[in-house]
Amino acid sequence: MTGNKNQNPHVSVDCVIFGYAEQQLKLLLIRRTLQLAKQDASDRFMALPGDLVLEDEDLNQAAKRVLKELTGLDNVFLEQFAAFGAPERVKKEKDKQWLQSVRENPEARVITVAYFSLIDAAACMLLPGSFSAQAVWIPIREVPELAFDHNEIFEHALNQLKRKIQLRPIGFELLPEKFTLSELQNLYEAILGRELDKRNFRRKMLRSGFVIPLEEKQQGVANKPAQFYQFNRQKYEELGEAYVNLRLEGDDDYFLN
Amino acid sequence: MTGNKNQNPHVSVDCVIFGYAEQQLKLLLIRRTLQLAKQDASDRFMALPGDLVLEDEDLNQAAKRVLKELTGLDNVFLEQFAAFGAPERVKKEKDKQWLQSVRENPEARVITVAYFSLIDAAACMLLPGSFSAQAVWIPIREVPELAFDHNEIFEHALNQLKRKIQLRPIGFELLPEKFTLSELQNLYEAILGRELDKRNFRRKMLRSGFVIPLEEKQQGVANKPAQFYQFNRQKYEELGEAYVNLRLEGDDDYFLN
Repeated sequence: MTGNKNQNPHVSVDCVIFGYAEQQLKLLLIRRTLQLAKQDASDRFMALPGDLVLEDEDLNQAAKRVLKELTGLDNVFLEQFAAFGAPERVKKEKDKQWLQSVRENPEARVITVAYFSLIDAAACMLLPGSFSAQAVWIPIREVPELAFDHNEIFEHALNQLKRKIQLRPIGFELLPEKFTLSELQNLYEAILGRELDKRNFRRKMLRSGFVIPLEEKQQGVANKPAQFYQFNRQKYEELGEAYVNLRLEGDDDYFLN
Repeated sequence: MTGNKNQNPHVSVDCVIFGYAEQQLKLLLIRRTLQLAKQDASDRFMALPGDLVLEDEDLNQAAKRVLKELTGLDNVFLEQFAAFGAPERVKKEKDKQWLQSVRENPEARVITVAYFSLIDAAACMLLPGSFSAQAVWIPIREVPELAFDHNEIFEHALNQLKRKIQLRPIGFELLPEKFTLSELQNLYEAILGRELDKRNFRRKMLRSGFVIPLEEKQQGVANKPAQFYQFNRQKYEELGEAYVNLRLEGDDDYFLN
């Protein structure tokens, strides 16, 4: 990566990519490119997937490229959510050695534009990107200390996700095509980090019209087989830019109580 | 401004500052610094207030500085809403001459981080900033062709504002301390660009608890004097990061119908 004249050394994109697998909300992280000896201290840090923006590339294109290289996925929900540009963000002692090995001017401030994505972790194969040695899914409760200000960027995205699922049913990108209402509830609980009342959740989700019951039921389960549902994509698309009301009137009757 | 070593030549902030006066929603614009002859074509364009980020400055600090220099105001609602970084955004023919007169490297891509602000236009005096010759309020329906991609940035902010007032009563920053419900409705109509049903608006706004009736009424008006209200700041602050439900259940009963 050193000295690639095609990169803008002052601006990067970083992607907070959430996935859902084994009933856990996970974060896609990369291990930094191994240009240093394996035992080197600066190799300890994982990071959000990201890269410097290429000279002929728009910000959105750069984020799409990063996501595509790592997951092979195109056409994924991907949204810019904030820019981070504190002068000291790339000047921490812990990041110095690594920066020196990959940047022409390791002291220069890099402003990063952060993107937010949701994908079905079970349905994608992780690939090593040109900017990373290895990509891994880490459960959000186990996210370690990350490079630069990446922990802050991750927390910001997680808070955004918690707010967003109260406005639009965006969690569906994380699930397979057909799912049970219990699986959907598990997903919401994993995002919000707390338990939800089962009866309330089912009633309100069904009433919202965003899930459609299928003929099909679970097979080969010990208990009473649960019904499968699918996401009502048409209703979602009709919505356009508007927000849905996923809350009811009054303080004590929110959708997500 | 040319050759100020203290500026990061690759990153700027731009502020979309909405104000409300004479029952119109207005946008704060600047005329570019007059370093060129008055008749010069590149002098025709107005622009959003903005500036390159200083080397020791965070992005938020830069936006606050721009707003403070122009309006004298501190502690104003100011929110980052998007970054714009298309490679061609500073390469349009119309902007060339001006850029050549103020930038060391006029060809270099500048990525801008856009901020969004709401102020009571009637209560602030406009000052010439270090980055502009003159600041003016322009009604949003009369915004001319602007520099760079500033029209796009403005449209983006306006759409955001339209969505936001359905989620939180943010319009209050635009009004004086005390106001009538008609004034509040005028403001909402100016933002949304359409008329609202008076009875519905009053009923729902009163029920939301965000306005408190005052003892005081209008004086010296020909018709029946209207009651003054003030914004319930405590309720707003209790809300924290959460969104309010400014919509009711059902498709045909939105708050803003």
